[in-house]
Amino acid sequence: MAGGVGTRFWPKSRQLMPKQFLDILGTGKSFIRHTYERFVELVPPENFLVVTNRKYKDLVLEHLPELKPEQVLCEPIGRNTAPCIAYAAYTLQTKNPEAEMIVTPSDHLILNEADFRSIIGECLVFAAEHDALLTVGIKPTRPDTGYGYIQVSDSQPISKVKCFTEKPNLELAQTFLQCGEFVWNSGIFIWKVNTIIKAFERYLPEHHTLFSSMQQTLGTESEQSTVEKIFAECRAISIDYGVMEKADNVYVRCGEFGWSDVGTWGSVYQHSRKDRYANAIPAEGCYLYDTRSSIVSLPKDKIAIISGLKEYIVVDTEDVLMICPRADEQNIKKFIDEVKFHKGDKHI
Amino acid sequence: MAGGVGTRFWPKSRQLMPKQFLDILGTGKSFIRHTYERFVELVPPENFLVVTNRKYKDLVLEHLPELKPEQVLCEPIGRNTAPCIAYAAYTLQTKNPEAEMIVTPSDHLILNEADFRSIIGECLVFAAEHDALLTVGIKPTRPDTGYGYIQVSDSQPISKVKCFTEKPNLELAQTFLQCGEFVWNSGIFIWKVNTIIKAFERYLPEHHTLFSSMQQTLGTESEQSTVEKIFAECRAISIDYGVMEKADNVYVRCGEFGWSDVGTWGSVYQHSRKDRYANAIPAEGCYLYDTRSSIVSLPKDKIAIISGLKEYIVVDTEDVLMICPRADEQNIKKFIDEVKFHKGDKHI
Repeated sequence: MAGGVGTRFWPKSRQLMPKQFLDILGTGKSFIRHTYERFVELVPPENFLVVTNRKYKDLVLEHLPELKPEQVLCEPIGRNTAPCIAYAAYTLQTKNPEAEMIVTPSDHLILNEADFRSIIGECLVFAAEHDALLTVGIKPTRPDTGYGYIQVSDSQPISKVKCFTEKPNLELAQTFLQCGEFVWNSGIFIWKVNTIIKAFERYLPEHHTLFSSMQQTLGTESEQSTVEKIFAECRAISIDYGVMEKADNVYVRCGEFGWSDVGTWGSVYQHSRKDRYANAIPAEGCYLYDTRSSIVSLPKDKIAIISGLKEYIVVDTEDVLMICPRADEQNIKKFIDEVKFHKGDKHI
Repeated sequence: MAGGVGTRFWPKSRQLMPKQFLDILGTGKSFIRHTYERFVELVPPENFLVVTNRKYKDLVLEHLPELKPEQVLCEPIGRNTAPCIAYAAYTLQTKNPEAEMIVTPSDHLILNEADFRSIIGECLVFAAEHDALLTVGIKPTRPDTGYGYIQVSDSQPISKVKCFTEKPNLELAQTFLQCGEFVWNSGIFIWKVNTIIKAFERYLPEHHTLFSSMQQTLGTESEQSTVEKIFAECRAISIDYGVMEKADNVYVRCGEFGWSDVGTWGSVYQHSRKDRYANAIPAEGCYLYDTRSSIVSLPKDKIAIISGLKEYIVVDTEDVLMICPRADEQNIKKFIDEVKFHKGDKHI
């Protein structure tokens, strides 16, 4: 899944350059490239499908030159995760209905890839043997109010799911953390193609009808116009809300492999290497004085001299400079709106 | 006089783009252009001489296309104001020894140009009638410790000078301000060419010998090589220290015409139009939140979103970003040194 527009990292992320194509942590590779390399040890390149907005098709192929253009499924508009997953699942069904399918976001951070792959391997075996919708859970390390939580029903490695709770308030998140029965929802799913399609049929019948009708056009000239019509008609809904919360064959495999959805500058800060004054700065060209606990992002070859900032985000790009206290990063949305109001989409 | 290198406005000013060629206050014209236009109502264009470092010759002609190349006198190296003024004075002497000469910095701000010109007019009359070295003083408005002070001996409009005092400490500056006998030294001088040359002969005889020897080469092929040799040999010294503090025919005309040497970002801040939160920002493209008493300078077409800064200087250029509390602007020298150490002269 690589369709996100990602305004949360503006001005570094843009409508035409969302987070999955960026290297916000300075690792040398984009998130989508890391995601590909993480899975290519389990899945042959020709078995990948990337679902993205059509405006990112070229970007996907640029970051993943191993893929053929027909492996990039283009959404005309974003309709949340259920239609995105349906597009891929109904496409895969025409090729191999017995196949197992791994669904993953393309813009997450995973630090321990070996552990991660061994868990995914386990999940694939379980999915092959059971008619199960399997999700990967993350052992929570803090009462984060930005994540979805999944309650497990036992302490088996792969446990039946009791219930889903989206973004709890802090008090509830603290209770979840203490009680030990809750894990974070990573948005990574493993199932047989036939299993998820049965679930669509039952819980999202309209989507089932629409995407079934697409199958005979796949690979033909009318595929794009059919997909266009389907996305225009189908309801935007998440796979969690549309299927996972309703189905009774949902399981979770909880893992610890250094996961983050890197959804905020705060989380980028958290996962970046820091200097001795706790600043997360580029390896080159950043000269700090009396500056602590700040995060700085600069264009290539630009230098910055920063004095007297405590806990700030400084993001400089070719056409936009943003300076903002780390505690105020939720205001980025407001900043974007104001810039849009005055300047149109030019800088967005 | 347009030879200054002006590192105090780094990163906006550069070795190859010093302050006199910049429009730091956002007026639409560079300082040198304003200076030219201020004087061209009193002096015909063909009578201007600009003394500058040879690396700025093209810049001078670009900002003052009215001048011919031979009106730009090129110093091979900066040697402070006495050699600069000598180069111009000994050049003028070969053309018209009876001429009056106005010496002015090219990077100062003057708000009330009509009053200024009427004072310069008075000074020209006085200089024509007297064998006097006349300087323009500024009625001080605060105990500034960054300026030179001149003590007047009476309350005549044009008064004999009692003494010069360079950059006093705060206590002394406060005394100067209270006593009422002191004015700021603007660095603007008016005299007859013959009068200043007599003063060189008497107070800076080495300079007199060197620059006299130059006169026969003016306009010939060997002018540049002679000037090269003279500047290599002659002592760097200011006209104030070398001549004005020693001569006994020094007069000052005190004026009030909204003058500033705009020597620091603090002074740019002071002279800039402010928004209602006392921020001095570009007319376009700067969006501030919870930000007060700060000054922002941006490249053309760049936008900035700044949140939570109080009393900061933010200067963004194509290759350098500087963020620094206004109170720490004296550190700019240190910043430059660090950047030089790591990156060489590239960004300086």
